[in-house]
Order: sequence, then C-alpha cells, then structure tokens
Amino acid sequence: MDPKAMFSISYGIFMLATKDGDKINGCITNTCMQVAAVPTRVAIACINKNLTCEMIKRSGVFTMSILDQSATFDTIKRFGMQSGRNVDKFADFKCPVDEKGIPYLPSQTCAVISCHVVSSQDLGSHTLFIAEVDDAIRTSDKAPLTYNDYQNNVKPKAAAPVQKKIVGWRCKICGYEYKESVLPADFICPLCGHDVSDFEPIYE
Amino acid sequence: MDPKAMFSISYGIFMLATKDGDKINGCITNTCMQVAAVPTRVAIACINKNLTCEMIKRSGVFTMSILDQSATFDTIKRFGMQSGRNVDKFADFKCPVDEKGIPYLPSQTCAVISCHVVSSQDLGSHTLFIAEVDDAIRTSDKAPLTYNDYQNNVKPKAAAPVQKKIVGWRCKICGYEYKESVLPADFICPLCGHDVSDFEPIYE
Repeated sequence: MDPKAMFSISYGIFMLATKDGDKINGCITNTCMQVAAVPTRVAIACINKNLTCEMIKRSGVFTMSILDQSATFDTIKRFGMQSGRNVDKFADFKCPVDEKGIPYLPSQTCAVISCHVVSSQDLGSHTLFIAEVDDAIRTSDKAPLTYNDYQNNVKPKAAAPVQKKIVGWRCKICGYEYKESVLPADFICPLCGHDVSDFEPIYE
Repeated sequence: MDPKAMFSISYGIFMLATKDGDKINGCITNTCMQVAAVPTRVAIACINKNLTCEMIKRSGVFTMSILDQSATFDTIKRFGMQSGRNVDKFADFKCPVDEKGIPYLPSQTCAVISCHVVSSQDLGSHTLFIAEVDDAIRTSDKAPLTYNDYQNNVKPKAAAPVQKKIVGWRCKICGYEYKESVLPADFICPLCGHDVSDFEPIYE
C-alpha cells in the first residue's frame, strides 16, 4: 500500500466548533460529507485526542464553517495549530453564534452548517459522528477551499535553506583562525591547545 | 435552511466498483473520506437504490478509483449516467482488476484504493459503509478532480438557446405569408380561411 495514495482524496477545510456548557472551542478539520437526505445528515471524523472532539461527545452539537478561497493562514493557524486546552481561541476573535450559541465564521467561508449528532462510532484514532443538519446558510459565492488549495496557495512556503560557504574556523577560546574550509578532526589550536569542539565556522 | 449551502462542501469524483459473485458493476460517487488510521479506514455513502450499493451490501468489497483532472465526461457518463441493471458498463471497456477481481480505472485517475467493509449503517436514502483499506496505489501525479471542477470544466455546457427573430408567419395549408412578427390570435388566412393554429413562424 502506498500511504501517499490516501492524500489523493479531495477534502475541504473546515472550522469545527462546539459549545459544552459555558465553554466554546473550535479546531480545523478536513472531513465533512453529506451522507443522507430527508433529513439532511453529514458525517464528520474527529481525532479523539482533540479537545473539540471530547467536547462534541458531551454536547452533541457543532457548527461547521466551510472555508472558502479567501481564507487566510492566520485563521487556520488560530484554530488549527494550538489547543483549546491552553488558550481560548475565541478570546480576541469575535464570532457570531448559531441558535445553540455555537460560534461560526461569517467571513472567509462560503457556508456554515449547524448540526446535532444522531450517532457516533469510536474508530480508535478518530470518532465518526453522523449528525443531522439543523440549519445551513451561505456566507459567500466563492469556491470552497480544498486541502490541495491550502497546500499550494495558503500554507506559507518554507524558506529555502541558506547555503553559506565556510571559509575557515575560529577558536572560540583564543580567537585563532584556521584559514581552510575543512577543519581536520584531530586539529589542536596552536595558540591555546583546545580541540575542534571549541572552534566555530567562519562564513564567507 | 438554505439547501444550496450543502453544495459548498468539497467533494471528489470517484468510480466505485464491486464484484458480487461473477457480476461486476461500478458507478460514479462523490463521497469518500478517510475516517481513521491504524488501520486506515474510509467512509463512503451510497444511494440505496443503486445497483452498486446493493452489490456491496452482499460482497463487502469495493475499489474506489479517484478521478483526476484528466477525467473525461465520457467516463463519467459511462459509469454515472446509466444503470448496471440495463447494461454491462465494462462490456467494451477493459479495466485491470485488484486482487479480489474488482475492476478499477488505471487512467484518468490519480489513485485507486481497494477496501473491505467493516461496518455499515442504513441511513434511509443512503447506506454509510466504513471500510478498511487493503491496498492503495497512485496512478498519476495530477490533482484529484473536485465536484466543482466537474461542474465548471468537465460537464458539457448546455447549448445557449438560439434566439431566432420571427419576421412573419406562413400558412401551412396554402403558403400565404403574413409579413409581421406578431400574428394576431384571431387572424384568419385570407386565401384558405384557416386559423392561426395552421401558421408557422418565418425566421430571419
């Protein structure tokens, strides 16, 4: 099996939020699909160790904000790259709430759905929730952001590693400079007697 | 609820195939997502009245061919717009088969996964299958086709209705021509006495 083949399935990017008692939290997920009609139901898969997943198991309700092509990395970072166990992701990020009091994203999204869980199945790493859609609104005419779009257009590109040329080595103890690019492993500083572990590279 | 909001969820396009005894069949679906790791499992939702769905309930095995950007409307039409109850969709369309003898699409796809069902849930209109992935191969480096791509780039555009200008009306009985664009409803042919139901438009 080629594990990379699994990446070929198309996914969207969603901000999944819930409210459990007075606590609200949200995270970034990429699994949501309609699985039945009359009534409209969706299936979502959540990582069990995520706080949002734990909270949905108790609350049984959630919103799915469907990110669109205008979604920024900052939004994805806010909800997807830190845990609600350590920070309040909504503290300085005001959002409207649905009829159940669950926050959702009114911008950077093309639609928002509000759901209640009708069944769940623990699959070990994840829990699969099947939920009935109570409300669904469109928030823009833009195309939904796909996981591919995120990888290609939204995620910051890693900076190219800087290729610096080493032209010599300096003894950190006495300042002696060895004027060759390669320092022999058994080199001893002729001034202070220290070995190569006390030398640092001199760049061009 | 705005039902169109549900269309904002991103989906791929898949050729879902199975083998039940000696019979093979396949259809086009848009729901497949990975729902768990170790072992890798996917969830798919199938319309209960589709033959492929009935067959998977018996066979418990399927392949998912993940269509890519090179997929043609002909392929989608072959598998998605006719029923295996009436035609053998693979009769003049040779495909390789996986280890279980289930056909898959080696071209117009970026990956193919081969699965066996571990649980299913009847949701009325659809059945949700959770299946373990037995094999997964990549078949191209192209991006997966999304449902949006299909709607915008693959599906043939409806021909624009031809706006032909009516410049007169001809009596189909005697050939008399009335030289105005609007034929009065009570008009009677001055040559043969027939009414407007026997007139046809004359286009520019």
